[in-house]
Amino acid sequence: MLIVGELINASRKQIREAIEAEDFDAIAGLAAAQREAGADYIDVNAGVFVDREPELLVRLVETVQQACDAPCCLDSPNPAAIEAALKVHKGPPPMINSISLEKNRYDVLLPLAAGSDVKVIALCMSDEGMPETADQRLAIADRLVDGLLQNNVDLDNIHVDPLVQPVATNSAYGEEFLAAVQRIMAGRPGVHTMCGLSNVSFGLPARKFLNQSFLLMAAARGLDGAIINPLDKRMMANVAAAGALSGSDSFCMEFLKAYRAGKLPE
Amino acid sequence: MLIVGELINASRKQIREAIEAEDFDAIAGLAAAQREAGADYIDVNAGVFVDREPELLVRLVETVQQACDAPCCLDSPNPAAIEAALKVHKGPPPMINSISLEKNRYDVLLPLAAGSDVKVIALCMSDEGMPETADQRLAIADRLVDGLLQNNVDLDNIHVDPLVQPVATNSAYGEEFLAAVQRIMAGRPGVHTMCGLSNVSFGLPARKFLNQSFLLMAAARGLDGAIINPLDKRMMANVAAAGALSGSDSFCMEFLKAYRAGKLPE
Repeated sequence: MLIVGELINASRKQIREAIEAEDFDAIAGLAAAQREAGADYIDVNAGVFVDREPELLVRLVETVQQACDAPCCLDSPNPAAIEAALKVHKGPPPMINSISLEKNRYDVLLPLAAGSDVKVIALCMSDEGMPETADQRLAIADRLVDGLLQNNVDLDNIHVDPLVQPVATNSAYGEEFLAAVQRIMAGRPGVHTMCGLSNVSFGLPARKFLNQSFLLMAAARGLDGAIINPLDKRMMANVAAAGALSGSDSFCMEFLKAYRAGKLPE
Repeated sequence: MLIVGELINASRKQIREAIEAEDFDAIAGLAAAQREAGADYIDVNAGVFVDREPELLVRLVETVQQACDAPCCLDSPNPAAIEAALKVHKGPPPMINSISLEKNRYDVLLPLAAGSDVKVIALCMSDEGMPETADQRLAIADRLVDGLLQNNVDLDNIHVDPLVQPVATNSAYGEEFLAAVQRIMAGRPGVHTMCGLSNVSFGLPARKFLNQSFLLMAAARGLDGAIINPLDKRMMANVAAAGALSGSDSFCMEFLKAYRAGKLPE
């Protein structure tokens, strides 16, 4: 499973304060720690600093790239910030988080991704709002994937995020998401899926436990990427278990490695 | 999810020794504890006492029924033992664990279940051996379900066990099982699925953790019953999480009840 480390997000108090204090060493440390814990990409988000977002997203990319060898996941609703960050990003191509069918995002981000090797998270959201059913997610996903393919983005670089919604709002939201994952993966062999998990537990107690549980359930439906906290040991152990139990981890090699490294619960 | 408590099984040393010492109070205590922890049925198995199995299975049923109000799951490869246990079982109908396509089992157990209200675990096993693929499981399940329906067993009383096989033997075994669960549930709306989990982790470390993880993955594919240790708190918490996240637990009522009772991890 492709792991995007989610911790360098200025909506988190620790990160916002570090940025305000220009304490980029703290952020570098968090990048290195997430990489060490198994993150394949390091998410960077400076969205709360609306007026300075492009400049700060660039600064976060530079900080992460000095601290570790993982590429960044450029996380912004602001195409100008993503464009600025793409310009300074070095080494293996970064990931864009995210393009959607919202016209003001789609029209600006599509040309940035077109014909390039960047990975793109294709979020199932449109100007009609958030999808509720699997059918609605599929309809948006199809249009996003078609648009990206027509603009010479490889299918292998497309990671559809079907958009997790809280089960406390509607008991069916979990299954509608899970069904969408399975149908997207089956309908486009070679495409990927990806999501943040934490919305699923919004409004409920024991949220960390619910998010950890939902990762296993989504993996069972084919989810092959997640934006998570890689310092959450149980979550990373669940990633290892999902690989062994779904068969994506051949001969359980990664699972056994995690066991030998003391990373699994008893 | 329908929970069958698995602990009263004479293949476990504690139970074998209690039976040998005629310490049925210990067994009664274990029945009550499993019921208290949420078991819907209490599995009873005296299979290691080959020569005395019918007599001892009867004794286990009587012991469990004096200790708690849950019906028994009569677990034996020996039709004579199941027949004897059925005769003494009182109150809500018990569960038979299990009928299969193996001729010597099928021919004797089918008449016992025919036209009755007992619940039947239909194990995907035949005289050709254990199935490896989802297709093989489906073929056996279809014949078992058809045979039970033709003998006036309600679809709602049929719990197909697609047979868990160890991923350490073949990385694909987990997914073949999971795919079978989904296809069986989709192909026969109203039928149930059920399984023991522990075989999946055979030959690997961190088995308890793997079994707990596999429960969530199987629930995500539609599994609605499991033969587990209800005293394993994490396992039972996972059952609660699976209900909330899959939508089978309307308004997350059971999940919230488990939370308020202090049964969930942080």
